Amino acid sequence: MTAAPLYQRVALIGLGLIGSSLARAMRRGQLASHIAGHARSERTRSKSMELGFVDSVHADAAAAVAGADLVVVCTPLGTYAAIGAAIGPHLKAGATLSDVGSVKQAVIRDLGPHVPEHVHFVPGHPIAGTEHSGPESGFAELFQGRWCILTPPAGADAAAIERLAELWRRCGSLIEIMEAAHHDQVLAITSHLPHLIAYCIVGTVTGVEEATQKEVIKFSASGFRDFTRIAASDPTMWRDVFLNNREAVLEMLGRFSEDLAALQRNIRWGEGDKLAELFTRTRAIRRGIIEAKQA
Amino acid sequence: MTAAPLYQRVALIGLGLIGSSLARAMRRGQLASHIAGHARSERTRSKSMELGFVDSVHADAAAAVAGADLVVVCTPLGTYAAIGAAIGPHLKAGATLSDVGSVKQAVIRDLGPHVPEHVHFVPGHPIAGTEHSGPESGFAELFQGRWCILTPPAGADAAAIERLAELWRRCGSLIEIMEAAHHDQVLAITSHLPHLIAYCIVGTVTGVEEATQKEVIKFSASGFRDFTRIAASDPTMWRDVFLNNREAVLEMLGRFSEDLAALQRNIRWGEGDKLAELFTRTRAIRRGIIEAKQA
Repeated sequence: MTAAPLYQRVALIGLGLIGSSLARAMRRGQLASHIAGHARSERTRSKSMELGFVDSVHADAAAAVAGADLVVVCTPLGTYAAIGAAIGPHLKAGATLSDVGSVKQAVIRDLGPHVPEHVHFVPGHPIAGTEHSGPESGFAELFQGRWCILTPPAGADAAAIERLAELWRRCGSLIEIMEAAHHDQVLAITSHLPHLIAYCIVGTVTGVEEATQKEVIKFSASGFRDFTRIAASDPTMWRDVFLNNREAVLEMLGRFSEDLAALQRNIRWGEGDKLAELFTRTRAIRRGIIEAKQA
Repeated sequence: MTAAPLYQRVALIGLGLIGSSLARAMRRGQLASHIAGHARSERTRSKSMELGFVDSVHADAAAAVAGADLVVVCTPLGTYAAIGAAIGPHLKAGATLSDVGSVKQAVIRDLGPHVPEHVHFVPGHPIAGTEHSGPESGFAELFQGRWCILTPPAGADAAAIERLAELWRRCGSLIEIMEAAHHDQVLAITSHLPHLIAYCIVGTVTGVEEATQKEVIKFSASGFRDFTRIAASDPTMWRDVFLNNREAVLEMLGRFSEDLAALQRNIRWGEGDKLAELFTRTRAIRRGIIEAKQA
C-alpha cells in the first residue's frame, strides 16, 4: 500500500547539504510526485540530476517554483531577499512557501514582503546538519530523530502548517511550533554562540607560532579536535547567521565574555574552589542532556 | 610464547580512569608480575580488587610502593607534593618513578624534591581520557593509537626511559619525548584552553533564564551538546591543571579574548568578509587533522 504523496510538485531552492537531504528523504518516503531543484551553479545542477534526488533542475528559480505546491528555500540567509523578489510573482495560488534557515526573524523580514496573499508562508528550521557541504554530502537520514522548528506568523493557515509538519515528520523529524523571535533567542544560545566560540578558538589555536603548528595537529585529540569539527561548518551559511541574528548573538557573547573574564581572574588568583564549583555544575548539565536522549 | 614481564612489581598511586586503565592494559599485555594499587577511599580499593585489575590494594601509599620497580602517580596534580613526601623515603633503589599528570613543570617542582638519588624520575603524560571518572570507567584500550609524552629531566637514565616507553607502547601508545616546559606550552594550546572554553560556555549557556533552560537541553544538538562532553571531565583534575599551568593558560586565554573581541566587532559592524575569511581558514584546519589521522 502506498499513501498518496503529500505534495504534487515540490521546488527546492538550493541543493546543498540540507536541500539535497530533504530531497532524498522525500524520495525515500514518496512524499512528492515531482521534485524540482534550483541551484545557481551548473555543476550543482548536473551533479544533482546525476545523483538522482531531483526530477528536474532549473537555472532560473522562477521556473523551478512554477506550479509548485510547496517551495522550500535552502540557501544561505544572505540570498533570501533576492530569491523572494525572483520567485514571489511566480508562486502558485494556495502554495506553501517555507525555508530551512537558522534565523527566523530575518527570514520574515527578507522573504515576507515578497509572499503574495494567496500563498501560505510557514518558515521552518530543521535542527540538523553536518560539517560537510554540497549536493554530494546530503543523505535521507539527516533529519531522523531531530527537531524541526516551524515559526508560522500569527493567523497562518492551520492546514498548510499541518501538512508541512507531516512532511517533516515523515522525514523523521520531531515538530516544535515557536514564535520567530523566541526561536532566534534560543538558537543564539544553543547553536550560534557555540559555533562562534568554536570558530574563534580554532582561529586562536592555529594562529600560534609556526614551530608549534605541527604539534597542535599532532596532539589535537587532547581537546582541540572536538572544536574543529564544528568550526568546519559552511563559511557562507554561518557568516549570514551571525549577520542576521546580530542582537541575540551579541547579547550571549557579552555574557560569555563576562564569565570568561571571571574565570581568568579565578586562575590568576588561584581561586580553586570557584573553578571546582563551575566544573562540577557543568558536569551535571551533561547528565541532563544524556537523560533527555540528546547526547 | 610469553615474553617476560617488563617490570616485576608496579605500584599505581590512584586508581581512577587513567590508573585503572593502565592497570587493565598492563594485565592484558602481561607487563607486570604484580600490580599494587593505592587509593585513599576504601570504596575505590575494594571496587578495584573486585574488578580484578590489581593484585593488591593499600590504604597507605608508602606500603604500595615498597619493593616496586615502577611507581606511577595517577592522582590530581594538587596531591603530588604530599604523595612525594609520603612515598619518597620508601622508593626502592633503581626503581623508576613516573606519573600521568597533564602539566609537567609542576610535577618536577612538586615531586622532584622527594625523589632519592637512586631512583629514576621520568614524568609522563598519556594524551588520552574520557569524560568519565573512577575505577569502573577505565578500560584497557584507552591508550590505543594515542600519544604518550615523556619529559625526562636532562641526564635521566636512557635505559629507564626506554623501558617505560616500551611499557606505554605495549599499552598501545605512540611515544614522544619532550622538554617539560615545551609540553606545558603545547598542552595549554591543544588541551587546557579548549577545556577552559568548554567549561565557560557550558556555564554561560546554562546560566540563562529558567524558562529557557529546558529548551537549551532540548535543542542542544544544534551545537551546544558538543561542548558538554568535554565540560563533563573530572572537576578536581581540571581545577589542578589550571592552577598548575597558570602562566601558559593565561597567555593563551589572552590571545583568545583578543580574537573574540575582534569577532564581536566584526558582527556588530556587519563585516561579513572578515567572518567568512576566518570561517574558511578554520575549515582548512579540520582537513589537516583528518589527514593526520587524528580526527
